[in-house]
Amino acid sequence: MITMKTINASDLAQRDAFFTSLDKRTGETNQRVTETVSEIIRTVKEGGDQAVKNYTLKFDGSLPEYYEVPRDVINDAMTEADPAFVDAMLNAIENVRDFHQRQVQEGFIHALPNGVILGQRVRGLERVGLYVPGGTAAYPSSVIMNAVPAKIAGVKEIIMVTPPCKDGTPNPDILVAAGLCGVDRVFLSGGAQAIAALAYGTEEIPKVDKIVGPGNIFVATAKKLLYGVVDIDMIAGPSEVLVMADETADPKFVAADLMSQAEHDVLASAILVTTSAELAEKVQAEINRQVQYLSRKEIIEKSMNEYGAVLLCNTREEATVLANMVAPEHLEVLMESPMELLGALDNAGSVFLGAYASEPLGDYYAGPNHVLPTSGTARFFSPLGVQSFTKRSSYTYYTKDALHAAKDDIVLIANKEGLTAHANAITVRFEKEEK
Amino acid sequence: MITMKTINASDLAQRDAFFTSLDKRTGETNQRVTETVSEIIRTVKEGGDQAVKNYTLKFDGSLPEYYEVPRDVINDAMTEADPAFVDAMLNAIENVRDFHQRQVQEGFIHALPNGVILGQRVRGLERVGLYVPGGTAAYPSSVIMNAVPAKIAGVKEIIMVTPPCKDGTPNPDILVAAGLCGVDRVFLSGGAQAIAALAYGTEEIPKVDKIVGPGNIFVATAKKLLYGVVDIDMIAGPSEVLVMADETADPKFVAADLMSQAEHDVLASAILVTTSAELAEKVQAEINRQVQYLSRKEIIEKSMNEYGAVLLCNTREEATVLANMVAPEHLEVLMESPMELLGALDNAGSVFLGAYASEPLGDYYAGPNHVLPTSGTARFFSPLGVQSFTKRSSYTYYTKDALHAAKDDIVLIANKEGLTAHANAITVRFEKEEK
Repeated sequence: MITMKTINASDLAQRDAFFTSLDKRTGETNQRVTETVSEIIRTVKEGGDQAVKNYTLKFDGSLPEYYEVPRDVINDAMTEADPAFVDAMLNAIENVRDFHQRQVQEGFIHALPNGVILGQRVRGLERVGLYVPGGTAAYPSSVIMNAVPAKIAGVKEIIMVTPPCKDGTPNPDILVAAGLCGVDRVFLSGGAQAIAALAYGTEEIPKVDKIVGPGNIFVATAKKLLYGVVDIDMIAGPSEVLVMADETADPKFVAADLMSQAEHDVLASAILVTTSAELAEKVQAEINRQVQYLSRKEIIEKSMNEYGAVLLCNTREEATVLANMVAPEHLEVLMESPMELLGALDNAGSVFLGAYASEPLGDYYAGPNHVLPTSGTARFFSPLGVQSFTKRSSYTYYTKDALHAAKDDIVLIANKEGLTAHANAITVRFEKEEK
Repeated sequence: MITMKTINASDLAQRDAFFTSLDKRTGETNQRVTETVSEIIRTVKEGGDQAVKNYTLKFDGSLPEYYEVPRDVINDAMTEADPAFVDAMLNAIENVRDFHQRQVQEGFIHALPNGVILGQRVRGLERVGLYVPGGTAAYPSSVIMNAVPAKIAGVKEIIMVTPPCKDGTPNPDILVAAGLCGVDRVFLSGGAQAIAALAYGTEEIPKVDKIVGPGNIFVATAKKLLYGVVDIDMIAGPSEVLVMADETADPKFVAADLMSQAEHDVLASAILVTTSAELAEKVQAEINRQVQYLSRKEIIEKSMNEYGAVLLCNTREEATVLANMVAPEHLEVLMESPMELLGALDNAGSVFLGAYASEPLGDYYAGPNHVLPTSGTARFFSPLGVQSFTKRSSYTYYTKDALHAAKDDIVLIANKEGLTAHANAITVRFEKEEK
């Protein structure tokens, strides 16, 4: 039996107690995990591939079929796959590519009449590492959402690391996704040791500039510890969906969408913000009806009873304020004229508007990225995108006359800051003339 | 006496030993500092302004003249300032604004003929905190480089925190910079306690979404620990300049530019990469001549003797390879036809081309940002810019027909991933019709 707690949004104490419970989902750093991972990182940095393989033996009991998966094995996986799956993936890739191509930011040049040239270059990172979890969390859609924007950004080489299946073979769905998305090399290696190998490079695994992709606490901790040695994507915390709904919403749809988020994780949060108490009741009934035939029923029950909630409010405006306060990863608007609310929704990773923009549509298919800021960080973080795989740099060319015209200002500010060598670098260029 | 070590770039052992010594400048996290700062954060989170003031009393011995600097004190500082300084600052602000306005990235909408709407919004963060160090490291230019791009990004409120001068009064140059750049509020508070106040908010200091600006190890550690509660800019490590020069370069200019970086910090690194052994010798002589009249002579001597180097190579191409390996914060090209090299320079925060684009020109004046990725992180990090102060979010509107057309693909992928509640969220929308 699932009972989402019902909170009257005007009861500030109750409301804030619920928000605080959401914040608490973000676990403290685990000291023991940090120590274990630190040692793995040190060992792999020094020991290279042999160290990686030793850890695989230690943790998994055996070595996988391949260390690097040969190209023809990837090609065979694509040929042998269910054609309907390949088609579905190709359609998803096309949509994701089409959306992300619109994110491309070009560099610029600003050439002044006096000969001064200023500009900015934007380029793809040289090499990116993509972690793909194994087991039940082997998600081909995750390959699409990471590899497609990297390719569009101009990343020259994508190196995937992923643990093998229990029998030591590569997961065929992941290979299909890797093949279709243009991943360059695939290594059957998982855990913190694979992250360390990507960060420092080994004899066989190339050193990368950035590591992306989800993973368990060992993978996440390794990424956190190696941040700065390489760049990383965000550390994903427990995720949320917040559905804003009024009396026009179909309770079946609302119930299904809340559960599609809740099935991810017992820490996931599904929140209904509604102006209609009647709708809320119907949604609760629908949840208990639909959950019966869902395979991840237990996870859904746990997360909805613990972190699910119905927030009752009086107006659309109040609902908007609540959504902005939660700053959810996914925000659905099942209200009349949903587009009219877009401009007021300040904090959300991805916004789904109307009765047919169900969250799973975004997870797989529509085009926007599904790697989104979680746990309220949409206040300041952004979805993964093309710019996550680029670096900018600026450039400056000055003429002698232009520098001469700027000289007094620069020297004055430099001296104010007590940096006389800065001032000297300008004045020395005009030494002869002014002596 | 300054002697930059001379390394023949083809001697790989010697070259790599030098590169390793540069990497080692990045200090280990200091355990004792981390503990102290963690306690300060906890105390300020609970105790608010009183806790901030208690720490100020404890560390500085007295409270400053104001907690929040009144608006008329800021206005008076601008009126009473040396008009030449105000003019120089205004000119710098104009250049920085002009450059950064070109970085603005607009959102987009992609409306399809079938009624589907996809898009991306780009908006400024709501509120940003700017830390400005006090004492000898009180740099008005730092206010410009942080506040101007924030304003262009559309940040609604900039809150500055800065320690007072020794006598408890605000630093007038910093107030002038704050006033000219449109900083909204200024609090006389420094150290980790000021960072914690910005992250959580106190009775008087508003909670912000992102904290930027340089600071000592306590400030940097507080930012690192609070990353996730708020966004932060990069943690700046020891900085570098790398000058590529051939026989056409003026040794006086090269020497002066190397020292302008070296004066920042005993850990700063100044590297000359040159095809001309003759130039290298003249540069060393010039350094020892010019350093005599520079106020930060001791810092320059230390950093150049320890982390300075001349890398001798044979061709422009070799010099380019070396520059890309170091991935310096600042890269100067004092070679013939410098613009021709731009496209080959992959890794640098800011590139200065030609004899008159001296690094201090970029620190204060030309327009590009001076907050740059340090210690080789230009391989994957970017300069501070307008996009550092924005967040993106995506949005999706779908019609019933469009979702119906996508249904089978989505359901297939969801089932492959074992996420049946995801599949259910799509199928439930067409339940009646297909039963």
